[in-house]
Amino acid sequence: MTANYSGGRLYGLGIGPGDPELITLKALRLLQAAPVVAYPAPDTGESLARAIVAPYLKGSQTEIAIRVPMVTARFPAQEVYDRAAEDLGAHLEAGRDVAVLCEGDPFFYGSFMYLFGRMAERFPVEVVPGVSSLTACAATLGTPLAARNDVLTVLPAPLDVEILRKRLEDVEAAAIIKIGRHFGKVKTLLEEMGLSDRAHYIERATMETQRILSLDEVSEDGAPYFSMILIHRRGEAWT
Amino acid sequence: MTANYSGGRLYGLGIGPGDPELITLKALRLLQAAPVVAYPAPDTGESLARAIVAPYLKGSQTEIAIRVPMVTARFPAQEVYDRAAEDLGAHLEAGRDVAVLCEGDPFFYGSFMYLFGRMAERFPVEVVPGVSSLTACAATLGTPLAARNDVLTVLPAPLDVEILRKRLEDVEAAAIIKIGRHFGKVKTLLEEMGLSDRAHYIERATMETQRILSLDEVSEDGAPYFSMILIHRRGEAWT
Repeated sequence: MTANYSGGRLYGLGIGPGDPELITLKALRLLQAAPVVAYPAPDTGESLARAIVAPYLKGSQTEIAIRVPMVTARFPAQEVYDRAAEDLGAHLEAGRDVAVLCEGDPFFYGSFMYLFGRMAERFPVEVVPGVSSLTACAATLGTPLAARNDVLTVLPAPLDVEILRKRLEDVEAAAIIKIGRHFGKVKTLLEEMGLSDRAHYIERATMETQRILSLDEVSEDGAPYFSMILIHRRGEAWT
Repeated sequence: MTANYSGGRLYGLGIGPGDPELITLKALRLLQAAPVVAYPAPDTGESLARAIVAPYLKGSQTEIAIRVPMVTARFPAQEVYDRAAEDLGAHLEAGRDVAVLCEGDPFFYGSFMYLFGRMAERFPVEVVPGVSSLTACAATLGTPLAARNDVLTVLPAPLDVEILRKRLEDVEAAAIIKIGRHFGKVKTLLEEMGLSDRAHYIERATMETQRILSLDEVSEDGAPYFSMILIHRRGEAWT
């Protein structure tokens, strides 16, 4: 970028965990000011990110759905992001700002990273942090995430079970994220490690479809992708 | 609480990392609706939490500063929170809602936990998650915090150096928080472990006094309490 750059700016907007009211004033302002709004979407059907901000869209904005095939084996879908980076880049070159919607926070396990990696050297990018699912789950469960000098470990459930076991061995506070079809594996591991009584399960926190369940109530076939288990070894002694 | 409870509600409001525009719509609504607003404050002088939301206060609200002595050896100041819980409880019993301001997120290493532990069994409490310093620092640095199946570890700098060393040994992504007067110790450790080149330092992220410095630029005497070091072993390969 040169000093006389006249193109648009790329915004990665954290829109929060699901409740439309958990968007920040800043993300809302930039969302409504952007002539182009892009968001991840499934192969077919509605985008969750778009649904979260639907009350705020003005109808006059150009919308770009980045349709990412939900094939977990091909991860991430390189060509989809290559193509999206080209499409968004064309708008930026034409002087139009582009707001990319990011569920939760853009830099906390978000797919915005794949666009960021492709575009940050060519275009001015601003990332607006959002409320992550991590703290939203803790708030909804009424369970503090970490206190004092706790070490907090965030573990993606798709990791190999032996890696999860090793990381959980001396854990103080942990969040196991991206549970989805890995629920059975995680549940068995927590039982083996004697951590089940310390585990709090929640899915789709702050969304209308939110549910808090005991581990025994969750179908072993799998939980939603937006589900999380919080563990705190100290228990509930917060005073 | 009984079904015919007629007292007020206690709100723990995450107000975000410092930029007043990073408050959520929900926290702002509840803040402005509450007849009583409480916030942590130093022994003498201004409350940072209050300063963040100052543009939104209406002037007609009862304000309660919870003055916590900044004596790191006495941690937490039990009597201060005992007394604050009593004061806030009296407002709740009189039917007045109380909003407690929490920098960042209430359940992410926040002092709200000490009130929560004292009051949650006696009064209805709602926690509103906020943008944490964790994701705010990553956004401002332009450095993704964690991606794909990274394990993310959050480490409070006051921990013993050998505990920090052990936790950093096989780390993929880490955030070292509460740096403050522990900066020298942490810097030396990162140098010994060959992690300095992977470390990004930032203080007071999203505040007007925000600074991004190299480790060599930070005074070894100590950094502000609101400073953080982010480390990512993979480096900058986000695509």
